[in-house]
Amino acid sequence: MSSQFGTLFRVATFGESHGSDVGVVVDGCPPGLPLDPVTIQAQLDRRRPGQSALTTARDEADRVVIRSGVESGVTLGTPLALTVANQDARPADYAEMHGIPRPSHADYTYRAKYGVAARSGGGRASARETIGRVAAGAVAEILLRERYGVEIVAWVDSVGPESIAEDEIDAVTISRADVDAHPVRCPVASAQPRFVRAIEAARDDDDSTGGTVRCVCRGLPAGWGEPVFDKAEALLAHAMLSIPATKGFEIGSGFAGTSLRGSEHNDAFVPKADGLGTATNHSGGVQGGITNGEPILFRVAFKPPATIGKAQTTADYEGNEVELAAKGRHDPCVVPRAVPIVEGMAALVLADLALRHEALRDGRP
Amino acid sequence: MSSQFGTLFRVATFGESHGSDVGVVVDGCPPGLPLDPVTIQAQLDRRRPGQSALTTARDEADRVVIRSGVESGVTLGTPLALTVANQDARPADYAEMHGIPRPSHADYTYRAKYGVAARSGGGRASARETIGRVAAGAVAEILLRERYGVEIVAWVDSVGPESIAEDEIDAVTISRADVDAHPVRCPVASAQPRFVRAIEAARDDDDSTGGTVRCVCRGLPAGWGEPVFDKAEALLAHAMLSIPATKGFEIGSGFAGTSLRGSEHNDAFVPKADGLGTATNHSGGVQGGITNGEPILFRVAFKPPATIGKAQTTADYEGNEVELAAKGRHDPCVVPRAVPIVEGMAALVLADLALRHEALRDGRP
Amino acid sequence: MSSQFGTLFRVATFGESHGSDVGVVVDGCPPGLPLDPVTIQAQLDRRRPGQSALTTARDEADRVVIRSGVESGVTLGTPLALTVANQDARPADYAEMHGIPRPSHADYTYRAKYGVAARSGGGRASARETIGRVAAGAVAEILLRERYGVEIVAWVDSVGPESIAEDEIDAVTISRADVDAHPVRCPVASAQPRFVRAIEAARDDDDSTGGTVRCVCRGLPAGWGEPVFDKAEALLAHAMLSIPATKGFEIGSGFAGTSLRGSEHNDAFVPKADGLGTATNHSGGVQGGITNGEPILFRVAFKPPATIGKAQTTADYEGNEVELAAKGRHDPCVVPRAVPIVEGMAALVLADLALRHEALRDGRP
Amino acid sequence: MSSQFGTLFRVATFGESHGSDVGVVVDGCPPGLPLDPVTIQAQLDRRRPGQSALTTARDEADRVVIRSGVESGVTLGTPLALTVANQDARPADYAEMHGIPRPSHADYTYRAKYGVAARSGGGRASARETIGRVAAGAVAEILLRERYGVEIVAWVDSVGPESIAEDEIDAVTISRADVDAHPVRCPVASAQPRFVRAIEAARDDDDSTGGTVRCVCRGLPAGWGEPVFDKAEALLAHAMLSIPATKGFEIGSGFAGTSLRGSEHNDAFVPKADGLGTATNHSGGVQGGITNGEPILFRVAFKPPATIGKAQTTADYEGNEVELAAKGRHDPCVVPRAVPIVEGMAALVLADLALRHEALRDGRP
Repeated sequence: MSSQFGTLFRVATFGESHGSDVGVVVDGCPPGLPLDPVTIQAQLDRRRPGQSALTTARDEADRVVIRSGVESGVTLGTPLALTVANQDARPADYAEMHGIPRPSHADYTYRAKYGVAARSGGGRASARETIGRVAAGAVAEILLRERYGVEIVAWVDSVGPESIAEDEIDAVTISRADVDAHPVRCPVASAQPRFVRAIEAARDDDDSTGGTVRCVCRGLPAGWGEPVFDKAEALLAHAMLSIPATKGFEIGSGFAGTSLRGSEHNDAFVPKADGLGTATNHSGGVQGGITNGEPILFRVAFKPPATIGKAQTTADYEGNEVELAAKGRHDPCVVPRAVPIVEGMAALVLADLALRHEALRDGRP
Repeated sequence: MSSQFGTLFRVATFGESHGSDVGVVVDGCPPGLPLDPVTIQAQLDRRRPGQSALTTARDEADRVVIRSGVESGVTLGTPLALTVANQDARPADYAEMHGIPRPSHADYTYRAKYGVAARSGGGRASARETIGRVAAGAVAEILLRERYGVEIVAWVDSVGPESIAEDEIDAVTISRADVDAHPVRCPVASAQPRFVRAIEAARDDDDSTGGTVRCVCRGLPAGWGEPVFDKAEALLAHAMLSIPATKGFEIGSGFAGTSLRGSEHNDAFVPKADGLGTATNHSGGVQGGITNGEPILFRVAFKPPATIGKAQTTADYEGNEVELAAKGRHDPCVVPRAVPIVEGMAALVLADLALRHEALRDGRP
Repeated sequence: MSSQFGTLFRVATFGESHGSDVGVVVDGCPPGLPLDPVTIQAQLDRRRPGQSALTTARDEADRVVIRSGVESGVTLGTPLALTVANQDARPADYAEMHGIPRPSHADYTYRAKYGVAARSGGGRASARETIGRVAAGAVAEILLRERYGVEIVAWVDSVGPESIAEDEIDAVTISRADVDAHPVRCPVASAQPRFVRAIEAARDDDDSTGGTVRCVCRGLPAGWGEPVFDKAEALLAHAMLSIPATKGFEIGSGFAGTSLRGSEHNDAFVPKADGLGTATNHSGGVQGGITNGEPILFRVAFKPPATIGKAQTTADYEGNEVELAAKGRHDPCVVPRAVPIVEGMAALVLADLALRHEALRDGRP
Repeated sequence: MSSQFGTLFRVATFGESHGSDVGVVVDGCPPGLPLDPVTIQAQLDRRRPGQSALTTARDEADRVVIRSGVESGVTLGTPLALTVANQDARPADYAEMHGIPRPSHADYTYRAKYGVAARSGGGRASARETIGRVAAGAVAEILLRERYGVEIVAWVDSVGPESIAEDEIDAVTISRADVDAHPVRCPVASAQPRFVRAIEAARDDDDSTGGTVRCVCRGLPAGWGEPVFDKAEALLAHAMLSIPATKGFEIGSGFAGTSLRGSEHNDAFVPKADGLGTATNHSGGVQGGITNGEPILFRVAFKPPATIGKAQTTADYEGNEVELAAKGRHDPCVVPRAVPIVEGMAALVLADLALRHEALRDGRP
């Protein structure tokens, strides 16, 4: 049961990178939601390779097909099956690498786990696995927006050593249009050339670079999240660290907040339009695992992609020293394309928590 | 279903801070394991309040009672019920705070979620909830040690602005005895006085301070972890962010690794005694969500405790500005006591992944 | 994860027959429900041994202790831990049987599964395991009654070859008081002496006899139940066949209905006070797995208890022929005591479906 | 989460009767199994409509497409996505019935649950939903056969009032070839004409008839099954009652066994080739929820199909009396086609229990 996520709004993804299709089944989506394939396609387009000069040259249209769960543009309350065909698979690019586990890739660990040689192109460890997440996340977003008015926006926060300060973004107003105005997906104009240069420099060196994505979830009511193991922040951390290439997660004040005093860090309550709010938001929108009505704000760390053209000295499965230089198409930096994946996983977590919260209310107003 | 964790090695915790008991039911523990209550008690003693001048003065013996699942010192394969009585509850200390949600505490969000006023002393949001986790984690550690030779050791990595460098600890050899040699639970001698001063300074100001805990899991085979949503690092992130007061998680190179190039970050394979290992460990022991046989290394951020004696300006539920100063007993810094909690949650994750891995092998050698 | 049941209203039972306690943790119970221990105790008293001359002589007060989840008589929305101490354990009664697996008991299969010798008195296979179910079921009933007006009543339908006809009971009006008016727990006066004689005849022969329990769940709204795998009838069947000693389940027309024509079996719709109802109820209150507002009616088969005083020829673990006659205290017929267990398990199923249905409605009226 | 089944060998089905596809994702299937599409197709062919004069005239080739999880004819350990296109959908046949809930069909309850009008042709309540079950069950059977030597065979046991005696079938030797030798899928020659006449008589009356299916699972080791809630018989009951049109389940002696004495019913142990076996098998292969190595034998009751051509008096949604006669294509009796569905669901249960048992063994021989 390796490919399922969620308790009530539950997704099951499938598909190898070089097989016929990738996709997802979304179970638990409520009936009566307007579902236009265009909404799903829009997020897939933001994730797909080949969308700008900054990303991999693998060209996939990534057209979504809805095979069940929708009639006359409305969800039926039954499982949605969404598939995307693989078109531009080139297994030959990977032929050379058989017998050599790529450093910091999953070839070695998959072989240890499954006892079968890793498939060309990465199998389930490929970034194409995230297509199902993005498609399902787009469905979850419809639920969140239509029923609760929740919005989710992510952006690139740093590329390699280049970053922006938190106060350069207004998390209350930033939109996806702002983010998409530049292919690097950071809306801070002064950062865009720095981020581009960092990506291009890595690419020109046949190398890669890491980065961070930041995300805001706005319009949440107070009360979502489960108090012990399934705290909102715990499920978000789970979701984000399940995205390939992630190495860290922080919410609200995060690691930097550990050096503050409690008197500086505590978010004092103040009256707001619809009840209490907080004067500051070091908590990042959650208290004790439950949303407090302030925006959820979190950051995700992405390592530099493991697949690089630059030659690396490593060992083959027999332990012989070998030199390896990847030929496959790959991204020098994943963060611009990771933006919709982060948004999608956040939507899956919040949709699930919304339904779990409804269950608990059981008939109360 | 707010208080359950794990797929096959599954725990269900219960108990309010000021009720009669806290505890846990551990379901899925294999039969035939030697289980001495002393092993569980040892970890509870490292977690309990009042163990040193650096922690809260609330005094609880926290004696564990095993109510089922063990006969003649051996596990039966049936559920273990472990309970700890609450003894030193003083609800009166909290009387003053009724009607005022404590800043950055869960009073407000629990009320929003459950529609009932938060109980004195924090209910499930209290740190006493973690007793069940530590007790269950100690059981999981027995499984990991006896069947697989896995060891888990955590230590304090920073207190407030004071920290140690990663290379000051040898993660291959550090032991719990090293960690416990000083009450601040950091084995680096030069850091101990700095960490103590940071805690005492906060306490003397009726304030609190944050910190980080680092953890190593050693002796793991390659192959544990599920490849998509239940990656080892994703479950660890889930587990850690479910601990009260945590704000961040990073594994291996973490956030700092995002500024490296792929060529610097990749862990080249090298021959080792029992197969391939890696020359470096930026990955932190996992690739594609699956253990590679190198040590798992991660870090957890703890915010400064929200409960402070220092007066804070905030609002009551009606929105009136009020001044609040806590009287309850509380820790100025939680990280020394968080060490066994981090170890326990790591053990729960790894025991579950071990059993899930065995299932997949189904009869293969 | 052998001892957990339910998706949202989830229970985890624990406890061996001859250990210190048996009990249950109920997770997912909504907040704000009035919970009086007397309500739970009442169902436990109907289940406990020694309540009449027709049942085992093992005498257990079975007093429930609520260790968490309730404050001032109201549920907090947090897990309820309910325990019952074992008092009258007499392991010596079972000493003789070591080395011999009792026929049609779980000694042999537990040894095959767990690789450890079965504990005296049956461990988890003992009927005492059902205490946690009954206690949790009583909590579920409070939810069902308070929030939805649902009532559950079960009764003894047959003992050995003696039975009543379905039309001798009015399932719309039968109450627990009616059922409890006679210790055999069948409200049909003409059947009571026949059922008593069947039980006494078995007991007098140091033998045992089987029987069936029938159950009605009334006041259900239309719409509970999940349409594919978690149909209401499927979860009820799961629940009932998980009760020790059960061998069959049927709902509505059951096995007898298979010999009808569709035109006889179909339940025609007719107008009723609050919408549509059906003229007949061969369906037993469900259509396509979902409640239709008519009473749910089902029947459960209980085999004759395996533990009998009468000598039986069987084999020991080495395959040697041996003669075995049980000395432990045991029931000649379990169905009178099974009545509250059937009710409890039905309540667990329906409470879970209620919460799952609420989740799906997500904000709709 | 209405369409998922299993803990470790977990399936998620999808697809409406009159949409583009039906199918299933199988998660948790171990790697390295030989998977030939022909094996899956064979079971689908036994389920498909139009295979004989005794079944519905709807003609569907039901060709399975494997979209993921297999490479070079071997499972990868990753999710298998299996789809079947709907070809012969004729929604017009159902147009007349809009506004009238069909008696004993799920139209009314789906509307109550989902708040949307039931789709033409039954949506998820259609028998086409079972295609995913049969396809996934065929995969589970490969695991069971290849790794454990388990065989599953089901057959028609009764049609309407016509039945065979249990001892007319040798459950140890019966094969699928025996069963398929006659389209009514009962291998007892003397029963075949009686069963055919019962079906034809119902069909000729524009009516329908019920029946029962019996199933044997052979070659099981002792030790599969979980001892409390997930007993083997409980999961089988769950699985069988989740099949459309089922009303009952019994294992071993079932309902008839309730009238036996314990001394008659108990299965005495006797030495067998590979350890202990039992002289009789009233238990139906399980003790305390765990397999004992004897064949599992169970029976499932199927009601007469609700959809009949014969006119029925019923009410529309407004409560007006109406006369209804179905025009869609439908089976007069489902049991011959139900045989592979019963086998498939049994396989899903046993494959899941096999993996859960492996998990518990964790490293022990």
